[in-house]
Amino acid sequence: MKKISILGSTGSIGTQTLDVVAMHPEAFEVDGLAAGSNTALLLEQVHRFQPRRVSVSTKQLADDIRSSLPSGVELYYGSEGLVEIAAGGAADTVVTAVVGSVGLKSTLAAIEAGRHIGLANKETLVTAGHLVTELAERKGVKLLPVDSEHSAIFQCLNGENRADVASITVTASGGSFRDYTRDQLKDVTVEDALRHPNWSMGAKITIDSATMVNKGLEVIEAHHLFGLPYEQVNVLLHPESIIHSYVEFRDSSIIAQLGTPDMRVPIQYALTYPDRWSSPAARLSLAEIGRLTFREMDYIRYPALRLAIECGKTGGTATTAFNAANEIAVARFLRHEISFLRIEEIIEEVLQQHENVGNPDLEQIEYCDAATRELASKL
Amino acid sequence: MKKISILGSTGSIGTQTLDVVAMHPEAFEVDGLAAGSNTALLLEQVHRFQPRRVSVSTKQLADDIRSSLPSGVELYYGSEGLVEIAAGGAADTVVTAVVGSVGLKSTLAAIEAGRHIGLANKETLVTAGHLVTELAERKGVKLLPVDSEHSAIFQCLNGENRADVASITVTASGGSFRDYTRDQLKDVTVEDALRHPNWSMGAKITIDSATMVNKGLEVIEAHHLFGLPYEQVNVLLHPESIIHSYVEFRDSSIIAQLGTPDMRVPIQYALTYPDRWSSPAARLSLAEIGRLTFREMDYIRYPALRLAIECGKTGGTATTAFNAANEIAVARFLRHEISFLRIEEIIEEVLQQHENVGNPDLEQIEYCDAATRELASKL
Repeated sequence: MKKISILGSTGSIGTQTLDVVAMHPEAFEVDGLAAGSNTALLLEQVHRFQPRRVSVSTKQLADDIRSSLPSGVELYYGSEGLVEIAAGGAADTVVTAVVGSVGLKSTLAAIEAGRHIGLANKETLVTAGHLVTELAERKGVKLLPVDSEHSAIFQCLNGENRADVASITVTASGGSFRDYTRDQLKDVTVEDALRHPNWSMGAKITIDSATMVNKGLEVIEAHHLFGLPYEQVNVLLHPESIIHSYVEFRDSSIIAQLGTPDMRVPIQYALTYPDRWSSPAARLSLAEIGRLTFREMDYIRYPALRLAIECGKTGGTATTAFNAANEIAVARFLRHEISFLRIEEIIEEVLQQHENVGNPDLEQIEYCDAATRELASKL
Repeated sequence: MKKISILGSTGSIGTQTLDVVAMHPEAFEVDGLAAGSNTALLLEQVHRFQPRRVSVSTKQLADDIRSSLPSGVELYYGSEGLVEIAAGGAADTVVTAVVGSVGLKSTLAAIEAGRHIGLANKETLVTAGHLVTELAERKGVKLLPVDSEHSAIFQCLNGENRADVASITVTASGGSFRDYTRDQLKDVTVEDALRHPNWSMGAKITIDSATMVNKGLEVIEAHHLFGLPYEQVNVLLHPESIIHSYVEFRDSSIIAQLGTPDMRVPIQYALTYPDRWSSPAARLSLAEIGRLTFREMDYIRYPALRLAIECGKTGGTATTAFNAANEIAVARFLRHEISFLRIEEIIEEVLQQHENVGNPDLEQIEYCDAATRELASKL
């Protein structure tokens, strides 16, 4: 039995991870679940999957659910609770599916404790990629990508020599507004932005897809995960999201990973790697789909992607600042405080004021993160 | 230095194999070259690549070129000459690029002698797949596919467990007449048929592409090379020939190999496997191509493909008969003796008269091959 803990069990990736666990009850066992504030769903999950340890975001929520938990279940809360689920217990693999830079500390704790990581929290690598990959290597811990794009690249690299890689290409659907001009973006609403054409995901990542910030974060992640300079990481517009990403080798051969958009496939692969198990995910029929289309990424239409890559190349705390500014701006947009295009402007204004710190340690990253959030809240 | 011998050095695959050798003079050395009757080109190759052994198809041709050879070069001829180049000498890898079932005996001899095989002669596996794969396994010899489709599947299987394969899909451009109805095929000429839309290849394989016999041979080859039942080998129409083939795994993930149509890539991979070396082959830009299209294979439009797969499922000498009938019919079409559609009819008529022999030995295969040729010549 493989023991799994999930950070962010009630979110989109968390619930789909539990779907995968439920498909293979003979093989997986849930050790710990950490949720935010959706205690109703958490309690349902606890009764179904019988974890030994759970955590919620606040003491109040913990007190609310204490009497509803089966006896013997350990209850934690807050960021210490998240770390406890990540690093305590007996999990073989921890799926880090919390959203935002809150995932960093718990992911580092899980790696420190020798857990393999099913990495769905992209801010972990974006804000502290150098620390995370270095620690994972030192601890002999696998960083198994859960994102469909990184899972695709990871799968395409199976059995290949890293030295033979010429480039990797991350595909992008273009998000909810891919057919809008910049001018049409001025008046779009939160509700418009949350309608992603291909993937059903959480709110923050759906907005990040519309701004192409998500692809920027993925490029930075890919840089760290696969140890490639930014010059070897490309982005291609592919509206159908069928080719999830690909690798070009120096013999000019390309290996690509394809499938219907179903996150249960990369999630399961992260849990079963290097094996592949059966999945009820819909089989892809290229004949039924009929055609796949591609076009060059447009860095003028999507300035936030250009900014993300610039921050990646700058290094230091630049990507931390980029990410923190975006998190605050997206939260403000979701609260209807600012317009859609203001998200990009806030990121740009924050970066103009950002004083970069090279090769930062965790404390410097956390300081930058907090300071940037404060600034971005006021812009 | 890796020593290479080439059976069929003056043909399309043979000359492109020498192109690859010429790109990496520090790594490859030519040990032997066997050609048919194009002695002018063979002599050029001999002077450029300095093999130690050469062979031509007849004693007459051997006598013609004897005085033009550099001193010390051993000269052979006929089918014994082909076997000598395949199994004599000091080659590490023998590229079997002769066309037709003549390749079988020399390929078996090369395997018997412990040479790895760069397999471009598809009739080898079609007529005697069970003997060839069994011998290769026993001798610890690698069968490295040179065909773009099989090389693609071979690349997609890198680092994967064969038990996890759900199916493989061989893509088909549709050949020279893919936009013709059956009715329009009645009056097509040899010259029309030789205009393949994507690949520049030899005459026989170009006709085989137009009849879809080529794809039928590839399905039978794939069955033997990858040890999969016919039910797990699919064919998909993909006019652009950019996805060269793909593998679906049981988790419903698909791994595909893509590239510009350039045979030097799979040829080089067969010579450098498991490494990949640089190649001057044009890089694929999906953004430039813009779109890829796919449609279901039409077994009514292409009855020869249906026949090939039926023969494969029947097993025994059925595929030998299929292949021999096709070779004779194509030769007759190329001599303007029969119409294009008569090729399929001859195959069908031959198969109706064929008496199948299960699990045949080499002698039975050769007898079936000869008898079928005689029959197909008279129909």
